[in-house]
Amino acid sequence: MYLKLIVIELKSTMDQKYKKIVMKFGGTSMADMDCISKVADHIERELSNGTLIAVVVSAMAGETDRLISLADQAGNNMQQSERDVIISTGEQVSSAILSMILNRRNIDARSIQGWQIPLITRGIHGSARISNVKSNHLENLMKNGIVPIIAGFQGISEENRVTTLGRGGSDTTAVAIACGIHADLCDIYTDVDGVYTSDPRIIPVAQKMKHISFEEMLEMASQGAKVLQTRSVELAMSYNMPIRVRSTFIENDFENNTNSTNIGTVVTNEDGILEDKVVSGIAYSKSEAKVTIQQLEDKPGVAAEIFGNLADNGINVDMIVQNISADGMHTDLTFTVQETDLSSAKLVIESLSNTIKYAKLEESKDIAKLSIIGVGMRSHAGVAAQMFSVLAENAINIQAITTSEIKISVLIELKHIEKAMKALHSAYKLDQN
Amino acid sequence: MYLKLIVIELKSTMDQKYKKIVMKFGGTSMADMDCISKVADHIERELSNGTLIAVVVSAMAGETDRLISLADQAGNNMQQSERDVIISTGEQVSSAILSMILNRRNIDARSIQGWQIPLITRGIHGSARISNVKSNHLENLMKNGIVPIIAGFQGISEENRVTTLGRGGSDTTAVAIACGIHADLCDIYTDVDGVYTSDPRIIPVAQKMKHISFEEMLEMASQGAKVLQTRSVELAMSYNMPIRVRSTFIENDFENNTNSTNIGTVVTNEDGILEDKVVSGIAYSKSEAKVTIQQLEDKPGVAAEIFGNLADNGINVDMIVQNISADGMHTDLTFTVQETDLSSAKLVIESLSNTIKYAKLEESKDIAKLSIIGVGMRSHAGVAAQMFSVLAENAINIQAITTSEIKISVLIELKHIEKAMKALHSAYKLDQN
Repeated sequence: MYLKLIVIELKSTMDQKYKKIVMKFGGTSMADMDCISKVADHIERELSNGTLIAVVVSAMAGETDRLISLADQAGNNMQQSERDVIISTGEQVSSAILSMILNRRNIDARSIQGWQIPLITRGIHGSARISNVKSNHLENLMKNGIVPIIAGFQGISEENRVTTLGRGGSDTTAVAIACGIHADLCDIYTDVDGVYTSDPRIIPVAQKMKHISFEEMLEMASQGAKVLQTRSVELAMSYNMPIRVRSTFIENDFENNTNSTNIGTVVTNEDGILEDKVVSGIAYSKSEAKVTIQQLEDKPGVAAEIFGNLADNGINVDMIVQNISADGMHTDLTFTVQETDLSSAKLVIESLSNTIKYAKLEESKDIAKLSIIGVGMRSHAGVAAQMFSVLAENAINIQAITTSEIKISVLIELKHIEKAMKALHSAYKLDQN
Repeated sequence: MYLKLIVIELKSTMDQKYKKIVMKFGGTSMADMDCISKVADHIERELSNGTLIAVVVSAMAGETDRLISLADQAGNNMQQSERDVIISTGEQVSSAILSMILNRRNIDARSIQGWQIPLITRGIHGSARISNVKSNHLENLMKNGIVPIIAGFQGISEENRVTTLGRGGSDTTAVAIACGIHADLCDIYTDVDGVYTSDPRIIPVAQKMKHISFEEMLEMASQGAKVLQTRSVELAMSYNMPIRVRSTFIENDFENNTNSTNIGTVVTNEDGILEDKVVSGIAYSKSEAKVTIQQLEDKPGVAAEIFGNLADNGINVDMIVQNISADGMHTDLTFTVQETDLSSAKLVIESLSNTIKYAKLEESKDIAKLSIIGVGMRSHAGVAAQMFSVLAENAINIQAITTSEIKISVLIELKHIEKAMKALHSAYKLDQN
C-alpha cells in the first residue's frame, strides 16, 4: 500500500511535467531536407501529444562555416558587428525552411528572428550574452496555435543591431527561450542519444546516464564531453531549467512518449537525481601540453610574473604544480596549457629571462588529463584515495593533481590513458546501469 | 556677356544638384570581391566629392537563384512569407560584405536591413509594395558621417514579418529611399552605361541618350529594354525623383565628377529634357505570338467572352485587331500573347467552343513587335504616317498596329525586324548624337 502510493505520486509528478517544452535542433539535425523531415516528425509527435512547443534551430550543417569563409574574404575579425549580420543568415534560412516543411504538413508554424522576439543581448558582437527575452510575442503565437520556429544563435543589441552568441550559441538561445516562456523542459536534439559515463569509443561498456547534475555536466563539458555549450548549462543552472539531451535520429524515440524516462539524459539540479553513485562519469583530454621550468629561482613574485604574463597573452593555464624547494632557493614549476598554445607559452617564458632565472625549460605533449566527476564526492570521503590507489595498482604514475568539489583530475602519460579510464570506470561501478 | 551669364547660371544650377544621392548597385556589380572593390571605389569618390550618400545593394549575382532553389526544395510558391525570409538573406549578406570592405578603407559604413529602417510594405509577400520609408534612422546615420548600406529588395509588413518586393525590387528600394531622404538623384549602377536609342547589338550606330523621360523609359522597359524595374520608374515619376543609369565598370566614370553631364542616362520628367527629336528610341520584342480566330461568329459579347476568359486564366493579351465583318455575321479576330502563353491561350479558346462559333484557329510565332517611342509625338503630327511609309518603302507588311500617346507599335514578320529597325533608326535621325 505504501509502495503503491509512492508510485502514484511519482506518476502524477510525471504527468505534470513537460506540458510546455522548447525543442532545439542542431546543425547535424538540420543538415538536409531528409534530416529536416525527421525534425518535423519529432515536432508532429509532440503536437499530437498535446504538448505546447517552441522550436529553436541552428543553421544547416556547414552553412555557418561557409558564411564565415565569405566574411573572411571581405574583412577581418575586427569587424564582428558586420560578420554577425552575415553569419546570422544561416539560422534565418534554416528557420524558414523548417517552417515551410511544417506548413506543408498543415502545421501552422512561423519562422522568428532575434529582432522579432526581440531577444536582447549585451556585450561584444560575436560572443554577445543574452540579457532579456521578451516572451509576449512567442506566447501569443503559441496561444493561437502557431509554432514559433526560432532562429538560434542570434539576437539584437540595445542599438538594434544584429548580434551572435558565439559558436554553439543556439543551445543558449534554447535555454533562454525556455526560461522566458516558463517551459517545463528544454529538449536538445542532437546526433548523440545522451551523456555517457565515459567516452564509448574508449570504454565500450560506458552507460548512458538517465540524469546528470548541472555542475557535473559543466565539468564533463569542459573536459571534452562536448555535448552542450557550457553557457547554456550555466544559464539553465541559474534558472533551474532542466535540459534533456536526446537524439534526432534514433527511430525508437519517435514512438516513445516524451515523458518516458528512457529517453536521453536529463541535466537537472541535484535534487532531481536519486543516484547512489559517488562518481558519475569519467572524462579525459588529450589536447593539453606540459611545460616544466627547472631550477627556477624561488623568490616572492616569480609565479605572479610568469602566470600574469601568460594570461596577458591570452594563454589559459590549467594545472599548476610547484615542488617544494630543496635548497630553499630553487624549485621546479610545472603547468599545463592547450597544445595549440604551447609555442606561444614558451615564447612568453623566454621573454622573461631578464626578470626570472631558471636552468632549463622542458615541454611534453605525451600527456593526458583524466578526471572523475560526481556530486557524490561532496558527501563521500576517500574518493581521491581510491582513484590514486587504482592508478597505482595499474602502475600509472601521477604527474599532477587538481581537485574541485565535484571533480578530481590527474595528469598521466598519454600511453596509459585507455588503461586508466577502463580501470576507474570499473572501480566506480559505472559499467553497470 | 549674355552667353557668359547663362553659363554661370547653368553652372550654379549644376552645383546645387546632386549634393545628396542614393547609389544603387545591382547583382552584377556585387558579383565577387573584385567587383565589390569597384563599388567601394565609386563610394569613395562620391565621399571625397563631399556628396552625402546612402547606398542600396542587391544580392551577389546568382545568390538569389541559389536561395530560390533552396526554398523550392522545402516547399512551394504558396508559402511566400517564409520564402521571403530565405530569399532576403542574399541582400543581408551583400550589405554586410560591402560595409566590411568600406570599413577596411576607413570609411564608416553600416549595413541596414529593412526592419532596421524600417521600410514598411503592404500587399502580398513576394511582391509587396512599399508603403512607408521612415527616414529618421538613415538621416541620423548620415548626419553622423556613417554611410548606410541598405539591403535592397526587402521590407517588413505591418505584422512585422519580412517581405520582398519581387524580382528587381532593389531598384524600387533605391528610389523609395531617395524619395524618403529627399535626395537630389538616384544613381543606378549597373552593367550597361546608359539607355540607348535602340539595341546596339542590332543597330551598331545606336546612341546613348543623355536624357529620357519617365514615360519614355516606361515604354522602353516594357518593350524589352530591361534596364530598370518598371515599378521603380513609376515611383520615381510619382515623386519626380531623377534616376541616372550608369555603369559600375567603365573606368572613365571613376574620374568623372558625378555632376558631369557625360555620365550615363538621366531619367527625368519632360521639363528637364531639351531634345528636339520627335522619336527618342526604337524598341522591339520577339517573344510574342499571334493567334487568329477565322470566321468568328460576329455577335455582341463575343470579344468580352474571349478576352474575359483569357484574363481569368492569367494570360496577358497585348495587341488586338478585328477586321470589319464582310457579311455582317462573321469576322477574323487577331491578337498577340507572350509566346510562353500561346498553348494555354489556345486551350482557353477551344474550351469556349460551346458558346462561340468559328471556322479555324491559327497561330504564328514568326512575328515581332516594333515600337517607336517619344514624348515629342504629342506635339508632332505625322509620326505614324512616316513610320508606315518607311516600312512600306522597305516592303515590310504591317499585320497589326497599336498606339499610345508616346508610342506606336506594329506587328511585322520576324525576318524583317532588323531591316525595319535600321530603316526607322535612320529615318528618325537617331544615328546622330
